[in-house]
Amino acid sequence: MEKAIRELCAANEKKIVLLVLDGLGGLPREPGGKTELETARTPNLDALAAASECGLHLPVGCGITPGSAPGHLALFGYNPLEYPIGRGVVAAMGIGFPMKPGDVAARLNFATLDAAGAISDRRAGRIPTEKCAELCELLKGVSIKGVEVSVRPVKDYRAVVVFRGKGLCDAVADTDPQALGVKPLDPVAMDPKAERTAQVAKDFIAAARKILASQVPANGVLLRGFAELPHIPSMKELYKLNPVALAVYPDYKGVARLVGMEAIEDLADLEAQGKSLASLWERHDFFFIHHKYTDSRGEDGDFDAKVKEIEKVDAFLPRVLAMKPDLLIVTGDHSTPAVVKAHTAHPVPFLLNAREVRPDGISSFGERECGKGAWGVIPGPMLIRLALAYTGKLKKYGA
Amino acid sequence: MEKAIRELCAANEKKIVLLVLDGLGGLPREPGGKTELETARTPNLDALAAASECGLHLPVGCGITPGSAPGHLALFGYNPLEYPIGRGVVAAMGIGFPMKPGDVAARLNFATLDAAGAISDRRAGRIPTEKCAELCELLKGVSIKGVEVSVRPVKDYRAVVVFRGKGLCDAVADTDPQALGVKPLDPVAMDPKAERTAQVAKDFIAAARKILASQVPANGVLLRGFAELPHIPSMKELYKLNPVALAVYPDYKGVARLVGMEAIEDLADLEAQGKSLASLWERHDFFFIHHKYTDSRGEDGDFDAKVKEIEKVDAFLPRVLAMKPDLLIVTGDHSTPAVVKAHTAHPVPFLLNAREVRPDGISSFGERECGKGAWGVIPGPMLIRLALAYTGKLKKYGA
Repeated sequence: MEKAIRELCAANEKKIVLLVLDGLGGLPREPGGKTELETARTPNLDALAAASECGLHLPVGCGITPGSAPGHLALFGYNPLEYPIGRGVVAAMGIGFPMKPGDVAARLNFATLDAAGAISDRRAGRIPTEKCAELCELLKGVSIKGVEVSVRPVKDYRAVVVFRGKGLCDAVADTDPQALGVKPLDPVAMDPKAERTAQVAKDFIAAARKILASQVPANGVLLRGFAELPHIPSMKELYKLNPVALAVYPDYKGVARLVGMEAIEDLADLEAQGKSLASLWERHDFFFIHHKYTDSRGEDGDFDAKVKEIEKVDAFLPRVLAMKPDLLIVTGDHSTPAVVKAHTAHPVPFLLNAREVRPDGISSFGERECGKGAWGVIPGPMLIRLALAYTGKLKKYGA
Repeated sequence: MEKAIRELCAANEKKIVLLVLDGLGGLPREPGGKTELETARTPNLDALAAASECGLHLPVGCGITPGSAPGHLALFGYNPLEYPIGRGVVAAMGIGFPMKPGDVAARLNFATLDAAGAISDRRAGRIPTEKCAELCELLKGVSIKGVEVSVRPVKDYRAVVVFRGKGLCDAVADTDPQALGVKPLDPVAMDPKAERTAQVAKDFIAAARKILASQVPANGVLLRGFAELPHIPSMKELYKLNPVALAVYPDYKGVARLVGMEAIEDLADLEAQGKSLASLWERHDFFFIHHKYTDSRGEDGDFDAKVKEIEKVDAFLPRVLAMKPDLLIVTGDHSTPAVVKAHTAHPVPFLLNAREVRPDGISSFGERECGKGAWGVIPGPMLIRLALAYTGKLKKYGA
């Protein structure tokens, strides 16, 4: 199927917008109640739904709770199970680090270690990004024979480390025990091929501890998500699209870059994203707009705040519509119900608006209404195919 | 799954009718409006729907716009991506030419070339079929060493050429540039194995031009869809069915013959198809009835005329019902919305009527009503399985 689609795709001037409310799907706060999306006042989304085909999608598969990267890969049209992506790669790509095949990247969190070397704060008191950048600068002093080490700040206590050298392998276990009062774990090789990389990581951690010794609360580092650059065909190769990502958070720029999107830097909020959309309109044919905070408030367990974030995006919607996209998808990358405070496997509502749709009579954009829509429950990667088909970018198969 | 189904199929006396309105699926003419099928007055189809299980099907897959051959293959229960069928084969089989494995067939269109050899009319002024037959007779004069050449008329300016000989291969590019004012393309080999076939085609075209030199407006030929006979297991092998096709247009007889159906010749219209159905009733257990003009009027962009064609089939329906089929499917092979004037990827409505169904309360046969039906959106090849199951032709799996 993938091969057929690749052969059938052809570029045209039609514009597609994918508007993602991260963690959009929710659950009722109480039995018999409404979800966050059903609670939110969304006059613009409701009106758009009434002129759209609606449904629910499963980003990875039935019963699978998607991480952020797989959730987005699905929306970009990839089977996430075919393209496992490590956290380290997402982080490195997110800050625009030019990773090469064979590099091994890992997420690095600054942490506080007590006198006995046990973790007392996994986030080093949430040091500000400036401090993080300063510490990364200090870690430039780490030297490991035969390996080039790069440490770059991401945000707050988060950074990324990339090892470059011959014969490295990413099958190394996390050092973050995800618990307090215990020592960080050793970076253990999960495959004989990764023995050397594990030793490199061990040496790096030891050197970092020396350099950071006086930098309380950031006197230790935790590494996780060791990963090499995966080979993912780009959206240009697959779909002949020229896509751009308008995301505030680095990780989403990272996933976007992994599928060959250009990712715009320094977008602070929806306001900036809207301006960027307008200024880039003529240069691209696929626009990925990402709103993070629906997920954040879901993770916080703050139902009302998640409702407000949805309403913010609803208020933003007219700016997207003003561009007159030929096709607009509004959806999420997974569900993050406030009552669960975490990603869940629940299907995610979507609407697909274009001239060439059969509106299905859904006039309220919500999980249960979308479930009664034209598409029922479909795999997430189908959305992009429909978008390509309904904009004439996917040609006829067979005589 | 296919293997299990093959092993589970068993013939019985139950009769299945598949009534296909080509290009049935449509789109609203204006925002908020109805589709062609929703607009049509279809009292018979509506009453039948009320006693049926309804749904929408995707012939090839989500987002894939089906050509006519793939659309029908799906309805006959085959995965169209597994059995690519070239246009030449469909054309040759459609006129009952006895193709053998290794033969290479191509669609041949008579065209008008100007003094410089450029195409001035890709359809040679739409010469009548009689003239086409006469020209094909003239082309019997073409002789190519080691290759048997057959040219047969199809309809109007359309014909088919079949090359028979050792070592032929169908990987040859079309010579029809699908444009005016340019010369026909050379038949280029797309694979080294097809070098000789490309040369054969080139020699044939040169010889044809000489013979046709004085035959303005039909003084040139355009070849496309070079194709060998694919190996497709027959419906008899797969399903133990004894199927017959009642189609007016050659191409649909062609696809039917490719899956081992008998195809009846010289059926002019629904009237003749109805008579043929009655006369063949005792001899077969699967009847494929094809109505072309819904698609034709969709391709024309004539919304009202497509509505009328649907109404014609509705008026024809009682003749099918009078035979008391044990199972009746009414559907299309793809969508051809008049507003698009082309095949599209939109799901196709279907109803499945039999004694052993659970009527789903859909009392109006239309795209959006069917979308609320028992089956939602399913792959096209599932329909025949349901037909076999509901008529007791698909036995129990496992103890």
